Amino acid sequence: MGIALGTPASAELVAFKVGTDRAGLGRLMRLWTSDIVALTGGRPAPGDTAPELAVANKGLTVTVGFGARVFELTGQKPSGLDDLPVMKHDRLDPAWSGGDLLVMVGADDAVSVVHAVRRLIADAKPFATPIWRQNGFWDSTGADGKPVTGRNLFGQVDGTGNPAVGTPEFDETVWSKTPDWFRGGTTLVVRRIRMNLDTWDELTRSEQERAVGRKLSTGAPLTGTAEHDELDLEARDADGRPVIAPNAHARLSHHSENDGRRIFRKGLNYVHDTGATRESGLIFLSHQADVAGQFLPLLARLDAADALNEWTTTIGSATFALPPGFQPGSWLGQSLLG
Amino acid sequence: MGIALGTPASAELVAFKVGTDRAGLGRLMRLWTSDIVALTGGRPAPGDTAPELAVANKGLTVTVGFGARVFELTGQKPSGLDDLPVMKHDRLDPAWSGGDLLVMVGADDAVSVVHAVRRLIADAKPFATPIWRQNGFWDSTGADGKPVTGRNLFGQVDGTGNPAVGTPEFDETVWSKTPDWFRGGTTLVVRRIRMNLDTWDELTRSEQERAVGRKLSTGAPLTGTAEHDELDLEARDADGRPVIAPNAHARLSHHSENDGRRIFRKGLNYVHDTGATRESGLIFLSHQADVAGQFLPLLARLDAADALNEWTTTIGSATFALPPGFQPGSWLGQSLLG
Repeated sequence: MGIALGTPASAELVAFKVGTDRAGLGRLMRLWTSDIVALTGGRPAPGDTAPELAVANKGLTVTVGFGARVFELTGQKPSGLDDLPVMKHDRLDPAWSGGDLLVMVGADDAVSVVHAVRRLIADAKPFATPIWRQNGFWDSTGADGKPVTGRNLFGQVDGTGNPAVGTPEFDETVWSKTPDWFRGGTTLVVRRIRMNLDTWDELTRSEQERAVGRKLSTGAPLTGTAEHDELDLEARDADGRPVIAPNAHARLSHHSENDGRRIFRKGLNYVHDTGATRESGLIFLSHQADVAGQFLPLLARLDAADALNEWTTTIGSATFALPPGFQPGSWLGQSLLG
Repeated sequence: MGIALGTPASAELVAFKVGTDRAGLGRLMRLWTSDIVALTGGRPAPGDTAPELAVANKGLTVTVGFGARVFELTGQKPSGLDDLPVMKHDRLDPAWSGGDLLVMVGADDAVSVVHAVRRLIADAKPFATPIWRQNGFWDSTGADGKPVTGRNLFGQVDGTGNPAVGTPEFDETVWSKTPDWFRGGTTLVVRRIRMNLDTWDELTRSEQERAVGRKLSTGAPLTGTAEHDELDLEARDADGRPVIAPNAHARLSHHSENDGRRIFRKGLNYVHDTGATRESGLIFLSHQADVAGQFLPLLARLDAADALNEWTTTIGSATFALPPGFQPGSWLGQSLLG
């Protein structure tokens, strides 16, 4: 599913409304499985009308998710998968919210993404209709060509606090265990967060760093020198004030302040133009074993107090269960629908 | 100016309405010059509010152009630079047309593009206001990592007919000679071409290839085997019909059918979403020494007869003079405004 891979340079998320029954959903999943096997291998999907746009070695990944309503057809809903409650700071637009199915396609190259998405939507036609689509981009490469965490459009290093891929913390955080069909799956929260770059830019750099609790230059905590230094949440300055402010984003989102609860998050920058007017923001993506148990308490805490709320507004929200990856001979969602 | 370089993976074009006089325009050009020197060097522009988003080695290029109305302030308009006449098949939307100034930013990476564009717009604020912006993407790399011509969203290899960079034909085609200030400059036509992927997909591959006059697999002419084989416009099939049809795009746009007139073109794929509905197309970019002398006759010929007109509609059009590049110590447009 690519969850443990780096953030792609180009990505698109499409949410669908399902217009079929359980059997139809199974047919769609089998269709998508063969599309995904072909496209991620750099080969045209069956019936591909622009086969030359399927190019190998573009790092194409495809992730599929089930929204809560799918489980009205199938049963066995993962616990806590419902839509998130509306937060005080949310200004949710139905145009960016909800959905019964999700397809998320990422690649090194936007042409590959657009082509793959078009095939997947075409094959969904009898079964499911797109209700929203969101495009994003990310730069995971530094000036020296080496991998970096990447930055959002505020200029912040974004994603440092994740558990490291491959560690027990990562597995514990991300992979679900119940119901049986969902063992080895994960859930994904998609939040479309508008960022007010103009008012953010009115701050001084030290005001910006205080709001985040990290240095803009390196992403290091204000109590450290390197990006991955652990936060010292007890540290105080000469005046006795916490170096990392009580409402700093890095403090409030830290697992030690959240009863050990963690998430694994990625983000995609987005821009959305209406005529010559641009909206900028982040497609926030959070993986966790259990939405209600891990993500919701953290979200509520950030909504109540995060300093960043002054410059950010969530305008879209959706939640999906991503079934375990399929093996050769099996198909996507088979453990639920087979 | 990056004209002779490959098409960038990610690019944005912004057109502005000018609200200043000749002196103000000169000030803006000096500001933009220092921005461009910094940003293309991977350094923050003066006053950059997100300096860490300026990253070296991202292949950033910036091109600036003057629309016809600028020359009401300055005089010395290059001949033939006016807006193109509206063609029979055009369905021009003012929202994608015209403009007094153009900024075109390209890079390997979308974050670098978005950041540079934001700086350039911010510095234009007292002098010029954006009226449209268009984003595009292109894949100039094959599966083996080597450079390729790239494909549009119909799947066609797009741009094969260009004069090769560095040849006398290229220089003759692209670089302007008059007026004096414009020696070594070029003109750029920007056409936003909507492509109807759904009706295009209803064709057989041989119908698609007949419309273009080239093979989809390689971009080779229907009379050849390799992409850069010269077209044999006299070749006939067993039934005596031209192998490359009279209305094939490759025939009508070929310089031998246009009194030797050539252009140097690039393209950027675009997608534009309204809710869950996607429009796809091409931001067509044509460089030539003289718009009226080289591009307009070709455009009129294609408008009259090009087989592709059935699946394409031009919805935006704009024309700009790109001043000669600046050297250290000089500034952009100095030969006109200094």
